[in-house]
Amino acid sequence: MLRGNTVHGMTVHFSSRVDISAPNPIAAAEQEAKRQGIALGKLNDSNPTRHGLAPELVPSIYSADPRGPKAARQALAAFLSADADALYLLSSTSEAYSWLVKLLCDPGDAVLAPKPGYPLIESICRLEGVETLEYQLQFDGSWFIDTAAIAELLESAEGTRIRALVVINPNNPTGSYVKPSEREALVRLCRDHGIALIADEVFFTYALEPFPGNARLAGESGVLTFALDGFSKMLAAPHAKVGWIQVSGPSEDVAEAQRRLDVIADDYLPMSDIIARDIPDLLDAAEAQSDKVRERVQGNLARLHALLDADPHGLVSVLRAEGGWNVLLRVPAVLDENELVLTLIDQHRLTGQPGYFFDMESNGYLAVSLLPEPAEFERNIQSVLDTVADMLR
Amino acid sequence: MLRGNTVHGMTVHFSSRVDISAPNPIAAAEQEAKRQGIALGKLNDSNPTRHGLAPELVPSIYSADPRGPKAARQALAAFLSADADALYLLSSTSEAYSWLVKLLCDPGDAVLAPKPGYPLIESICRLEGVETLEYQLQFDGSWFIDTAAIAELLESAEGTRIRALVVINPNNPTGSYVKPSEREALVRLCRDHGIALIADEVFFTYALEPFPGNARLAGESGVLTFALDGFSKMLAAPHAKVGWIQVSGPSEDVAEAQRRLDVIADDYLPMSDIIARDIPDLLDAAEAQSDKVRERVQGNLARLHALLDADPHGLVSVLRAEGGWNVLLRVPAVLDENELVLTLIDQHRLTGQPGYFFDMESNGYLAVSLLPEPAEFERNIQSVLDTVADMLR
Repeated sequence: MLRGNTVHGMTVHFSSRVDISAPNPIAAAEQEAKRQGIALGKLNDSNPTRHGLAPELVPSIYSADPRGPKAARQALAAFLSADADALYLLSSTSEAYSWLVKLLCDPGDAVLAPKPGYPLIESICRLEGVETLEYQLQFDGSWFIDTAAIAELLESAEGTRIRALVVINPNNPTGSYVKPSEREALVRLCRDHGIALIADEVFFTYALEPFPGNARLAGESGVLTFALDGFSKMLAAPHAKVGWIQVSGPSEDVAEAQRRLDVIADDYLPMSDIIARDIPDLLDAAEAQSDKVRERVQGNLARLHALLDADPHGLVSVLRAEGGWNVLLRVPAVLDENELVLTLIDQHRLTGQPGYFFDMESNGYLAVSLLPEPAEFERNIQSVLDTVADMLR
Repeated sequence: MLRGNTVHGMTVHFSSRVDISAPNPIAAAEQEAKRQGIALGKLNDSNPTRHGLAPELVPSIYSADPRGPKAARQALAAFLSADADALYLLSSTSEAYSWLVKLLCDPGDAVLAPKPGYPLIESICRLEGVETLEYQLQFDGSWFIDTAAIAELLESAEGTRIRALVVINPNNPTGSYVKPSEREALVRLCRDHGIALIADEVFFTYALEPFPGNARLAGESGVLTFALDGFSKMLAAPHAKVGWIQVSGPSEDVAEAQRRLDVIADDYLPMSDIIARDIPDLLDAAEAQSDKVRERVQGNLARLHALLDADPHGLVSVLRAEGGWNVLLRVPAVLDENELVLTLIDQHRLTGQPGYFFDMESNGYLAVSLLPEPAEFERNIQSVLDTVADMLR
């Protein structure tokens, strides 16, 4: 292809779940008044906070902004160096997946997600009546995405049902970042097939070793992209329930996507003013929180290597992880994964998730969190090493 | 049918969206340990708050309870005189509808909802790939539910797709409560057809005139019932984002429903600890808040009657409303509803929702909120009276 040719992708497909029929004459007149800066009273206003009735504990006037309370959204936008209007505040990335699957997929359509991967995505898609198809991450010393296989799947009959490609950057539990060449290929594939990219980047900030060229997909302009992140990982605050979607891509696709996403968001309006008023302070704490957690996971990774090096049996190793909170231990494949974990439960009161939970292609893996306090972490690892040695004795 | 016969209803139908396949051996061993009161460590624990990493602003340890944080749920249960285990805390009744439609309906199934009614339900069902069918409320001086027509619909071919009956108690915008005889008929119909009852009772506490026999459907034991309520109306706090589902009914149906609803809730886990810690204080303020709002809406209803009585033209009347925050004005049916509201926008900078927004059967209605401060409310009503008189001059 000649450089300079404008390559137009296919138009992105949206679902028929969202009612975008033309506004009735009253809604049209309301939109026109808003455009002219005319504030209209509402005969049927059901928002008690606009009429002096809000409780003292939540004294704000509810704005019912589909994308989330503006002040909180602007604070987040400043933190991310993003456009506040490109952001949707919501309760979690689970909710974000749910909205995006509704936006993009009719029942019976499919989403393409990584394998190995976290089973939550399949469960959320199923709740939307949507199937999850998988693309394979391959391991040859480090993980890579088999983009040629994705291209083949998208060209197949099965592939015509695919409406979105999910990328976890870095992936969980493999810990692998999307490499620049992979990104280029994925963006081109999505554009060529008129499908959107959903980039889950909740672990992005937790690099475990330096990888040149790692970059967030958030803000990608080459294809309609929904980047997901939140306080759950960034602030080690899964209980705060703050997540967001950042929309980017070709302007026409973005405009159409946001027109429809606003309808979905307006039906749920999930962000509480009680949380929103804490968001600026939480953002102030974000960097220190990420640093604290990064120190923990990097420290535990070093402890893990030390324990593995010191293990006289030498039966357990760790797959190279680039980022995130989890690593995969490799145990002798002759061990049954269920039997290994059941023995850990029985003898060490310690449970775990073996490779088959994540659709690993072969037997002999165990996911391990790098979050525990060092003494607990070392006990956990020692329990695994002892159990494996016992079982093979 | 002889009294004393045990009448068994049909088994309630649940959707295939929820994966309830048998647990793998590891999950089964974890459940058994829990049953025995044995606390297991988790090799792959991804909850940073259990490892001393929570931010100072949200110092609690995240419990990830699918039904919502226990202390908040217990406080709510005490307030409602309900069982804490029958409650699911979530962000809103919109979210509750979304979960329940997922629980009960596969794509292509249908939900039966009242007409006139609020259009949000149809929009939420459509987002789930589910159709909304309507049953008619009839007005003969006061509103009643045509339960014979519902029975006929449920017996029809179309009716076999119906998986839930939505009742709004009191309905919006008609303001009509479910009467004891209607309740009895609806419960029997649901039980006989194996469908669940979804009772939206957010306006229950706002009676506009005394009606003997009004009762919440929450806690109904005759059929699987999901009662919805929240702080949006009870506390005049739509921005708090606190809603709940209360499950009741025959014990086997309840157990099966909760087993599946727990899976849905566990995928989203929407309730924030930041909100949950305010819930007890908000509940302490609930009664005073409800009283304040009740005084406002009852006061404005009296003002409305005074204004209508004093109106020299006598062209506008109000339909008898039993409860809620809204009433329906009846204007001469020769007026075009769109033209009326467009004139109000043009001449009074005041917009509104006419009857066709709510699927009223005939022309000539306008919904009016009773929430505004008295001076604004009187201006609103006077604008309607003046506009109607002008348009018919």
